[in-house]
Amino acid sequence: MTGPGAEGLAVGIDIGGTKVAGGVVDAAGRVLHRARRHTPHRSTKPGVVENTIVEVFEELVAASGGEAGGVVTAVGIGAAGFVAADRATVVFAPHLSWRHEPLRAALQRRIDAPIFVDNDANAAAWAEWRFGAARGESHMVMVTLGTGIGGALLMNGQVTRGRFGIAGEFGHMQVVPGGHRCECGNRGCWEQYASGNALVREARSLMVAGSPMATDLLERVGGDPANLSGPLITEAARAGDQTAIELLAEIGVWLGTGIANLAAAFDPGIFVIGGGVSAAGELLLEPARDRFRKQLTGRGYRPEAEIVEARLGNEAGLIGAADLARQAVRSGAEEALPDVDGPGAGA
Amino acid sequence: MTGPGAEGLAVGIDIGGTKVAGGVVDAAGRVLHRARRHTPHRSTKPGVVENTIVEVFEELVAASGGEAGGVVTAVGIGAAGFVAADRATVVFAPHLSWRHEPLRAALQRRIDAPIFVDNDANAAAWAEWRFGAARGESHMVMVTLGTGIGGALLMNGQVTRGRFGIAGEFGHMQVVPGGHRCECGNRGCWEQYASGNALVREARSLMVAGSPMATDLLERVGGDPANLSGPLITEAARAGDQTAIELLAEIGVWLGTGIANLAAAFDPGIFVIGGGVSAAGELLLEPARDRFRKQLTGRGYRPEAEIVEARLGNEAGLIGAADLARQAVRSGAEEALPDVDGPGAGA
Repeated sequence: MTGPGAEGLAVGIDIGGTKVAGGVVDAAGRVLHRARRHTPHRSTKPGVVENTIVEVFEELVAASGGEAGGVVTAVGIGAAGFVAADRATVVFAPHLSWRHEPLRAALQRRIDAPIFVDNDANAAAWAEWRFGAARGESHMVMVTLGTGIGGALLMNGQVTRGRFGIAGEFGHMQVVPGGHRCECGNRGCWEQYASGNALVREARSLMVAGSPMATDLLERVGGDPANLSGPLITEAARAGDQTAIELLAEIGVWLGTGIANLAAAFDPGIFVIGGGVSAAGELLLEPARDRFRKQLTGRGYRPEAEIVEARLGNEAGLIGAADLARQAVRSGAEEALPDVDGPGAGA
Repeated sequence: MTGPGAEGLAVGIDIGGTKVAGGVVDAAGRVLHRARRHTPHRSTKPGVVENTIVEVFEELVAASGGEAGGVVTAVGIGAAGFVAADRATVVFAPHLSWRHEPLRAALQRRIDAPIFVDNDANAAAWAEWRFGAARGESHMVMVTLGTGIGGALLMNGQVTRGRFGIAGEFGHMQVVPGGHRCECGNRGCWEQYASGNALVREARSLMVAGSPMATDLLERVGGDPANLSGPLITEAARAGDQTAIELLAEIGVWLGTGIANLAAAFDPGIFVIGGGVSAAGELLLEPARDRFRKQLTGRGYRPEAEIVEARLGNEAGLIGAADLARQAVRSGAEEALPDVDGPGAGA
């Protein structure tokens, strides 16, 4: 299916922990219209989130002056969580009440355009590969540093989803035996050392210990460690606060360690670092590259991957979700739609 | 190219640290003839290893009663080391003097059948997927426990080689920050905790410390820790030696930890455990499965991969190398042979 419709507009909707962000995306990855809502609280029933998604979709269709299925040829949903290989079912979502939720089937009853569901990091990686920092690369690893770590693998123009759809959970690879407890139940997960949460935890522990190193940071939050946030630490580092710079560098070193591990396993040509923490730019990436170069196995005997900042910012998830859905329609995967329980619709 | 010749016999040659083992392999993965030599010492020039390979090849061709290029349609070389994505160049081999060695070009001048070079673990994984423990699986991870750890990834019937050909070096993922020094120059590499070398190191340290736990093992080696080997510890464990059983279980626990990390990243359907240490069977695998089940992120919310023993033993490498070469010829990759420097011949 390569008609003009398939090359037209797609809707991408990114469901995060705090907001549902949607956009109408053209074939060049441009976002033409936007809509957003707060994410319903995790205690609400799955149907409430579905209502929110449908609202965002309808607002976007109205904004683009058309009817669903006419102007919009595909709808992509990016969700933080485990999405099954069928791209229809959300197996588990930490911020929502979804457990083995047949999301595509539920939405397909209310939206008259083919729907595909994907993990949010997969969607962001796809966007960066198609339109952003990894254009032209054959083997890419995406690492998104937010409150935790999201990850995705892309090889030869395909998102690598794994046997059950759950590949790319790099944040839960153990880097410190017996280390910090993680929300996943384990200890020492990578995201406990290289993430926004880790950054804030370390800064707070300096404050709580009454360290003189934290005096300036403490002033910035009006004396209350509870007011501390990742963006605030990044802002302080940009303003020259040495402690904030060191805290970010520590996160960078752990980022480099994990990336060296991923390079040993996958040998990609490029690592793209996205998510909120990546706004720190070189304050994060230079320490990461430095550690990577010192820890990569076989260094000196092999080509080394690049480590670069993501380019599409917050909208990578919705752009990628829209474009993945458009690609699925083009490849004819929507013909498998009635069989929402089967794996046949996977790309 | 799907003529009868392409479905005929292929030669596989596995170049290990101590031996060069070759075989004539039919399309069903059966080894019809065998030949082997000692691996030339790493101080000898690359040409000496090439001579050994050519000798093995010629012995095999003679044994199969034909001429090269007639009976034998493809030659696969499996080598311990980094093999470039072009499947022609050995970038680095720890046991040999090869550094950016254009192995295929050198051999192709002396062998009149298309040659493909691959990493030995890639070859073993391919053999297990085609003819062994992973038949019918779409996403497989192979972990070979020998003196170190070899690894390979297979997705949808393709060996995943990475951007530069060096994917699958799982043994050099760091599992313990500041841990045991590894030959690769780093500290805390997985293969320092889950391998034959780790098994022997731990047993020796008990002996050297004069631990009463090591009394029986010490007797088995005539009182000299230098005589200790992995197979000997496995033999003792099979005979009921509690210390040997515990030592193997410790290796198994580290195996399970690393496998949980790989499952988070790749989400395969099956892990196949090969290499010399895997001869310990359930003494190794049961502790590994137990740790894996306790450490897999998202456990309880996701399907879990199987962990099984490899089936093809020592010959997996040569069987896989032969079959990978046969497949490359079938897919027409040998047409790219004159361009030995290009990446075109990669599968």
